[in-house]
Amino acid sequence: MNMFGMDDWQALIADERVLVTRDILRYNDMDDNGHLNNSVFTVLCESGRVDYFRKRVTPHLPGNTFFVIARIAIDFKAEAFYPGEALTATWLEHLGRSSLRVRQKIMSADKLVAEAEGVCVVMDQTTRKPFPIPDATRAALEPLLREG
Amino acid sequence: MNMFGMDDWQALIADERVLVTRDILRYNDMDDNGHLNNSVFTVLCESGRVDYFRKRVTPHLPGNTFFVIARIAIDFKAEAFYPGEALTATWLEHLGRSSLRVRQKIMSADKLVAEAEGVCVVMDQTTRKPFPIPDATRAALEPLLREG
Amino acid sequence: MNMFGMDDWQALIADERVLVTRDILRYNDMDDNGHLNNSVFTVLCESGRVDYFRKRVTPHLPGNTFFVIARIAIDFKAEAFYPGEALTATWLEHLGRSSLRVRQKIMSADKLVAEAEGVCVVMDQTTRKPFPIPDATRAALEPLLREG
Amino acid sequence: MNMFGMDDWQALIADERVLVTRDILRYNDMDDNGHLNNSVFTVLCESGRVDYFRKRVTPHLPGNTFFVIARIAIDFKAEAFYPGEALTATWLEHLGRSSLRVRQKIMSADKLVAEAEGVCVVMDQTTRKPFPIPDATRAALEPLLREG
Repeated sequence: MNMFGMDDWQALIADERVLVTRDILRYNDMDDNGHLNNSVFTVLCESGRVDYFRKRVTPHLPGNTFFVIARIAIDFKAEAFYPGEALTATWLEHLGRSSLRVRQKIMSADKLVAEAEGVCVVMDQTTRKPFPIPDATRAALEPLLREG
Repeated sequence: MNMFGMDDWQALIADERVLVTRDILRYNDMDDNGHLNNSVFTVLCESGRVDYFRKRVTPHLPGNTFFVIARIAIDFKAEAFYPGEALTATWLEHLGRSSLRVRQKIMSADKLVAEAEGVCVVMDQTTRKPFPIPDATRAALEPLLREG
Repeated sequence: MNMFGMDDWQALIADERVLVTRDILRYNDMDDNGHLNNSVFTVLCESGRVDYFRKRVTPHLPGNTFFVIARIAIDFKAEAFYPGEALTATWLEHLGRSSLRVRQKIMSADKLVAEAEGVCVVMDQTTRKPFPIPDATRAALEPLLREG
Repeated sequence: MNMFGMDDWQALIADERVLVTRDILRYNDMDDNGHLNNSVFTVLCESGRVDYFRKRVTPHLPGNTFFVIARIAIDFKAEAFYPGEALTATWLEHLGRSSLRVRQKIMSADKLVAEAEGVCVVMDQTTRKPFPIPDATRAALEPLLREG
């Protein structure tokens, strides 16, 4: 039922708009069921998201801004286990007025284990209110957009 | 912008179909931004979900079944801080063929800090495949259903 | 073998020099063995330590100082389980030149589950070096000292 | 003050009795102070310990045994930061009647960030009591012993 295979993964990460972030799973990531606890997937999504923003988004934003996470949604596709690694592919799916939506796929042991979406809002450090994405930032980010 | 106030919360938890689960926030729940890390909200959702299932769902299910989480979605409404508590209201929103969808609202310091949805699938311990919710279970759970 | 019983606990917490901090255990605190993961005990110790410092130590320290943890040692006495609570008793055992040593006992389900020791160093925010505990602070803290 | 340098580290890990375990730090590992929370060091110690036992100890033990952790002690030597990695060196320091003591050094960003000791007890799965280390196991483990 999990139709996304290694070929699909290779095609996905060959796309330069997609950033891959690697995590090493920890014994402590497992729960009572002997598999990765669902909260760890949130942590892996965050690893990918922070990595993506640091490398591809923040350099194009004014210094007096920061991000808050407004929404996360994760679809669990398969169990993941320690010992092992997780590879998280992250890309930009949508640019709103002050927000950005990223999509993510997480692979572990050559299997798709989760798909996720995250919405972040650019905030003004002074007013603590949403900060409209400037035109120059938008121009720099638009080439990174990729359909789900 | 956060229109859900203490009156709405009191009305919500007065509904017997809604279960409230209490958590105490920990210093370690905070991240570099000095507020609760987003992954902690997943943990709070899980606290509420596990509590709800243990008390209201599992007693109506055959013994050879268990739950897996298929999807979580969290909308962040406000920051939450240590020291403090979190109260998570959980209720059943939808019964599928083998799945249940719960909705949740999390309050901290008298403020709505997150809304969440979780989809769980009943699994057969032997076949490790989805297990159709039996009629008797369905009859026991239907009175618990509550619209979003 | 675990000789510390409820009577000993009651006597301990009747001592005003001892601060009790309450935590609610979370499903996510358990690991693959179906009991609290050892790292959670560190988190419980930190809950107690931060609570103790916030209430009893920091008010007596100059504003330009902060604490770093220099050492923790935990002896595990019994397993702890979800659902349940943990009560952490914390007291001051020793005052050094720039450091404080606290001792802790953690109870869960009316059983001693861990004993711990933590050494914290007072630091100067400006120089980022150890800050000698001032005489006035020492005078305020000495009455709180309690032998292991 | 932190006298253990890269040369010492290289010499340490050149010793075949020492096992190095790698972890990738996560954004979520940081706390309010912008550095790795102390509980994460416990998780890193566990990563190293579990890795060591899985590879070097468990293969020499009867199948009806398991380990429990009886004690951990961690001395914090320097702050560690995200993004980055942690390398944990683990070796066997002492064999007791039913227990093993390991020592660990954790490096991050080419700096010694922590030293740790962990005591594990071999348990009998049936009786849930300490299981004396068999002579054959002892003979296999003794060559791995290394002074602190």
